[in-house]
Amino acid sequence: MKTIENKKIRIALLGLGTVGGGVYEVLGGLESELPDKIGAKLEIGKILVRDLTKAGRNVKDPSVLTNDWNSILKDPTIDIVVEVMGGMEPAKTYILQALQSGKNVVTANKDLLAAYGKEILNAAEEAGKDLLFEAAVAGGIPIIRPLKQCLLGNHITEVMGIVNGTTNFILSKMTSEGMEFQEALALATRLGYAEADPTADIEGLDAARKVAILASIAFHSRVVFDDVYTEGITKITATDIRYAREMGCDIKLLGVARDTPEGIEARVHPMLIPSSHPLASVQDSFNAVFLHGDAVDDAMFYGRGAGKLPTASAVVGDILECARNILWSCTGRIACSCYREIPVKKMEDIRSRYFLRMQVEDRYGVLASVASVFGNNCVSIEKIVQKDRWETTAELVVITDPVKERHLRDSLAVFEGMSIIKEISSVIRVYGDK
Amino acid sequence: MKTIENKKIRIALLGLGTVGGGVYEVLGGLESELPDKIGAKLEIGKILVRDLTKAGRNVKDPSVLTNDWNSILKDPTIDIVVEVMGGMEPAKTYILQALQSGKNVVTANKDLLAAYGKEILNAAEEAGKDLLFEAAVAGGIPIIRPLKQCLLGNHITEVMGIVNGTTNFILSKMTSEGMEFQEALALATRLGYAEADPTADIEGLDAARKVAILASIAFHSRVVFDDVYTEGITKITATDIRYAREMGCDIKLLGVARDTPEGIEARVHPMLIPSSHPLASVQDSFNAVFLHGDAVDDAMFYGRGAGKLPTASAVVGDILECARNILWSCTGRIACSCYREIPVKKMEDIRSRYFLRMQVEDRYGVLASVASVFGNNCVSIEKIVQKDRWETTAELVVITDPVKERHLRDSLAVFEGMSIIKEISSVIRVYGDK
Repeated sequence: MKTIENKKIRIALLGLGTVGGGVYEVLGGLESELPDKIGAKLEIGKILVRDLTKAGRNVKDPSVLTNDWNSILKDPTIDIVVEVMGGMEPAKTYILQALQSGKNVVTANKDLLAAYGKEILNAAEEAGKDLLFEAAVAGGIPIIRPLKQCLLGNHITEVMGIVNGTTNFILSKMTSEGMEFQEALALATRLGYAEADPTADIEGLDAARKVAILASIAFHSRVVFDDVYTEGITKITATDIRYAREMGCDIKLLGVARDTPEGIEARVHPMLIPSSHPLASVQDSFNAVFLHGDAVDDAMFYGRGAGKLPTASAVVGDILECARNILWSCTGRIACSCYREIPVKKMEDIRSRYFLRMQVEDRYGVLASVASVFGNNCVSIEKIVQKDRWETTAELVVITDPVKERHLRDSLAVFEGMSIIKEISSVIRVYGDK
Repeated sequence: MKTIENKKIRIALLGLGTVGGGVYEVLGGLESELPDKIGAKLEIGKILVRDLTKAGRNVKDPSVLTNDWNSILKDPTIDIVVEVMGGMEPAKTYILQALQSGKNVVTANKDLLAAYGKEILNAAEEAGKDLLFEAAVAGGIPIIRPLKQCLLGNHITEVMGIVNGTTNFILSKMTSEGMEFQEALALATRLGYAEADPTADIEGLDAARKVAILASIAFHSRVVFDDVYTEGITKITATDIRYAREMGCDIKLLGVARDTPEGIEARVHPMLIPSSHPLASVQDSFNAVFLHGDAVDDAMFYGRGAGKLPTASAVVGDILECARNILWSCTGRIACSCYREIPVKKMEDIRSRYFLRMQVEDRYGVLASVASVFGNNCVSIEKIVQKDRWETTAELVVITDPVKERHLRDSLAVFEGMSIIKEISSVIRVYGDK
């Protein structure tokens, strides 16, 4: 290992919350090994916090704490700014200013990157500095670097991920214990897997941000948060899961990104996937990203998608990589990889198979009526099964062939006005073309 | 993307067999995108083959073919030598000569690296050149770069892998269809998953080479092929697998590397793992590497461990990485990462749980005799179950607590001399400490 004149790389942490505290802890535990690992020492020169007194209890040397961003920005000895404060502002301003003043940046901020990735990566490229963000997608799981480097020889056609631990925990509990959604959410909240306001998780917004970032990198074309169709898991019931299991499937909240001849698909929604699919075995709060490339075929990356130390693992990996790049004068070597401009398809134009559960009047001819509505709206049916019946109601489960979302919606609109259709209980997409 | 003066990176392929042909094909399909992907064009300048005529049928421009290594070595325009010929010699000599003459090297050669990794990586470091080998372990699955870069902030304590597709295919068939070993091997041979001489696969030698490489990188201490205890799958029976399933386990051929306070464990052998473990769901010829780090917690990397295009995916990823390093003048940036020297434990000193299947005389007192032999040899028993009995024979299944291998072997030696023990049918290790 080439050691460069006892050089010391100095970093500034922006934020000392869960992730920042994890980074501080992991770097502390590596101190003696860093010269062997990267050829230099590494020092936390400054930490930006709001409350100096509170933060003082969590660091060995409180003199590194500051609440003045400018004291970091103007400090020419700071080589790397590590943004782990989260949120849009002031994180965005700080990152852009850091890059413009010649500092490298490591960030875990998926919200920011999913909305302003282009602007931020362009700023990094202009400055010739690193902007690394492995922690922004799937926490500790290495996925950004594998995509940008190891798999660069592939044309990636599909990326599918379980990229939100909260919803995967909820669906796992609904599956293994037969819980309903509200009960499983309450358990997740009690155990600390769900936040006080769980909206961003259960409505799929958090996952959508990660899909935007993954799609941009996998397909070399910018996809932003607003491009991603998003549907959460609040309407999934224990019955849906039980029926799915009977069909050899599990229900997962999946982020799906596909590169098709008609454009990029980018969406987050619950989906039935075969229980034999590698993603189906991802349990509890674990995450996984599955992808398909023309050379590598299928591959999957599995691990902890959140949490103090797993996220710190990814941030510290980026810090060490950036430090090496500084020592070898090759920062900015791997910049924005979006060199194409492919349109993102509208959800109405995307083809899926669908699982529908509907309550209908229990009398002759109803099934034929249902089938003919689908037929009139270009929705081809794989099968219709009559499940439970009670009093005057029968429950139908319908699996469609792959059909355009707009045709499915047209069918649903017709059902709305039909008295024999008492309720459309569930509409869930099904994985695969068969 | 910074493009450097229309620079063209020139590579030489050593070998045009399965992997070489795959690399040729994948690079061909990328030609128009390479300036966008890495900032330069890439050209296959020379291909070393044995039979010029035969190889001529497989390339667009036969003038690049040569059977003279020196014409490559002495060609100053060749920047990267891609060794995909396999085997020990002349691959080793060619790689060392290439490095010494200032060329970078990409190789897929696990046999060579598992035996001479230190010598080869030292030569690369002295030359300040890249020696990249992502394809040497688990084919297309990105695992070397994630370990050396993304997870560098971790202290990795365990790496476990299904790193041989042939044996995983055989065990999968034995599990799903109840086949015996010979029948499953015959099927694997018929389908092209097993070579004509399957020894290196079914005896675990191929997996052992990958374990040596993985352990060296994960624990920063050199482990070579000869350090790895190796046991194949030829003795596994359909009965073993059936009994394992009854206990909620699958049997897999696992490469296991652990960093313990007493030293490094490096071994390949069949193992019972809980069916809920992520590795248990790896089916057919797929590979996966599971690891545990102090920050990242559990992580797993899954995909195709062999095959023309998946292996080419990894080789081409390395070529593109190396090309970028050449353009940025930072070759040799990530060199040998073994900076510690930790002893490798002897197999006799390693603690495992064991599954034993034994045929004993069916009469009073036998179970007590068996139990007392274990007791006298420091082997603590978790449970003994009597399974089938027929005529004068009873079958016992024993699960031990974690015990030192030497104590288990001592017990087996005693059983050898006891007339009431008719046969020790199976001795298989069991995952976990509980």
